[in-house]
Amino acid sequence: MKVKGKEYRTVWMERCVVYLIEQNLLPFEFRIFQAKTYKETCEAIRTMIVRGAGAIGAAAGYAMAQAANEAKQETYNEFISSAKTEIENTRPTAQNLFYAVERVYQAACISKERALIEAEKIADEDVAASRTIGEKGNELIKDGYNILTHCNAGWLAFVDYGTALSPVYTANRSGKNIFVYVDETRPRGQGARLTAWELKNENIPHVIVPDNAGAFLMSQKKINMIIVGADRIARNGDVANKIGTFEKAVLAKEFNVPFYVAAPLSTIDMNCLTGNDIPIEHRNENEVLYQTGIDKNGKLREILVCSPGSGALNPAFDITPAKYISGIITEKGIITASEKNIISFKAKE
Amino acid sequence: MKVKGKEYRTVWMERCVVYLIEQNLLPFEFRIFQAKTYKETCEAIRTMIVRGAGAIGAAAGYAMAQAANEAKQETYNEFISSAKTEIENTRPTAQNLFYAVERVYQAACISKERALIEAEKIADEDVAASRTIGEKGNELIKDGYNILTHCNAGWLAFVDYGTALSPVYTANRSGKNIFVYVDETRPRGQGARLTAWELKNENIPHVIVPDNAGAFLMSQKKINMIIVGADRIARNGDVANKIGTFEKAVLAKEFNVPFYVAAPLSTIDMNCLTGNDIPIEHRNENEVLYQTGIDKNGKLREILVCSPGSGALNPAFDITPAKYISGIITEKGIITASEKNIISFKAKE
Repeated sequence: MKVKGKEYRTVWMERCVVYLIEQNLLPFEFRIFQAKTYKETCEAIRTMIVRGAGAIGAAAGYAMAQAANEAKQETYNEFISSAKTEIENTRPTAQNLFYAVERVYQAACISKERALIEAEKIADEDVAASRTIGEKGNELIKDGYNILTHCNAGWLAFVDYGTALSPVYTANRSGKNIFVYVDETRPRGQGARLTAWELKNENIPHVIVPDNAGAFLMSQKKINMIIVGADRIARNGDVANKIGTFEKAVLAKEFNVPFYVAAPLSTIDMNCLTGNDIPIEHRNENEVLYQTGIDKNGKLREILVCSPGSGALNPAFDITPAKYISGIITEKGIITASEKNIISFKAKE
Repeated sequence: MKVKGKEYRTVWMERCVVYLIEQNLLPFEFRIFQAKTYKETCEAIRTMIVRGAGAIGAAAGYAMAQAANEAKQETYNEFISSAKTEIENTRPTAQNLFYAVERVYQAACISKERALIEAEKIADEDVAASRTIGEKGNELIKDGYNILTHCNAGWLAFVDYGTALSPVYTANRSGKNIFVYVDETRPRGQGARLTAWELKNENIPHVIVPDNAGAFLMSQKKINMIIVGADRIARNGDVANKIGTFEKAVLAKEFNVPFYVAAPLSTIDMNCLTGNDIPIEHRNENEVLYQTGIDKNGKLREILVCSPGSGALNPAFDITPAKYISGIITEKGIITASEKNIISFKAKE
């Protein structure tokens, strides 16, 4: 997608250096971060310089390729095996991370050149899948639709196009009038900061809404459909996604609003039988207690927004059971969230 | 309740000056605001120096009494009538405001002395009702309970004790072990800032949770009951309360968690047949786009936390239909949220 007229991916590699859009600085500053070693790329994943299922996956794949490139001949196998574990330990929930690391690791077992090619292939596949998800999802969107989305599953969360927002972009480019309600998505505000920034760049009409306003909006029939992304999907169709997704899914069921999950097939983890098998990352309480933003002089500041001395819980994801999901928009078409359907679609992959 | 060892009400009047705890500065600074005229008290209500159903009611009653005191003999009737309209226009949703202004206005029609007595009586009744709500509500709380609350319906929202938090205080003082999950309550963060501050002052174990975590917590059976306050209750039991309350009520029903509303009978507006008759206040988008808090030097700052150039919706309240409510905890006992029960309880008032 374009930023100030120039085409960007969220993450790419040149000569074994990984380049990442610094997402912690967005929407206030647009800067590219360079990770010269696999350890620096790990740190970028951990500190959420790169975030979002697909972008994490691509970055992790590149990190694995960097590790293969850094490994010395005599300790090659030990080095890449230990690097694999280190990369896998950066973030526990996103399936794409494990999927990408495993693929690049297998390639690295043959040669470092194969690892580099495989990492590039994963990024390219992510772009192609996201683009196709846009086309498939667009078929669900009618002219004049008001769409609610939670968190950021836009192009910033993938390598390009995104998942939940990809159908929105396709609908907009095909000339449909659409309006997007953007959930703020506390505590990190990915909706208010990243999704809003993406939609503004694309001139798509939208408004930021507090996460608390979901029932109010749906009960007043303001929302025609909900599309969210996924960090991991279990074999039975249960979906791990940003904390608050489950809330919106319950409300969608209560108010008869179609609730779609958009994700590439690589997000499905056939080893997780149900959502109970998906680990939930609990992040530092400071992400709830403090907020960053810019003051009136444009200076980035961090402030305490909660009562001093009180603690906070910060579960980063929740699991939406399959029964709440109208369908999963994948690059191979729209799947009913059930084990039978998922197995049959995974077979086509 | 006590602040640094000294007993305070949230709002009181001495010699026709209204004193208010400056709630916009809490929890970072504890300061008392003085409103010397009814217009200054109106401004304090409008700018949310005082907020919360009961505290607004008491402040509005005092404002009406101030107006009666300020009125000149020759234009007394016109002055108090025009002041009444002005006070009523400060905030549209809270029933207590209209209830208090009407009562003090009727007294003012007789004499300014009567107005002052009536305003004081309303504040005292608020304190008594809140204390009794604590006792009635405590009967629902078992030892070891985890209680979720949304927004702030503690003593800061009333003149003393509060409503949703009053049973929590009574349970704690009676020796029960309880734990409170405090919804952050975006956009203004009344949970994270005011409820957490109150609970810390009373040494009640608690944790702040993002509003998004409700389904996660309830699905994991972490919550034994939910208690919230109310800004206005319709004759049929529909409840207007802080935006996000309706979300929690839908989730509570889905996960079989008892959902209680605590409010004095004065919150019930018999002129509103259903929640559809209750006006919803839409506040300025800047409350969503900007956040205030303190930086590492303790300096109060306002920062932009959303993507620059995007707008926001800010509905301040939502309406929870009666069918989601397990019961309304009032000073006369626990009412089923239905027209029949409400009429019979109002008759006892």
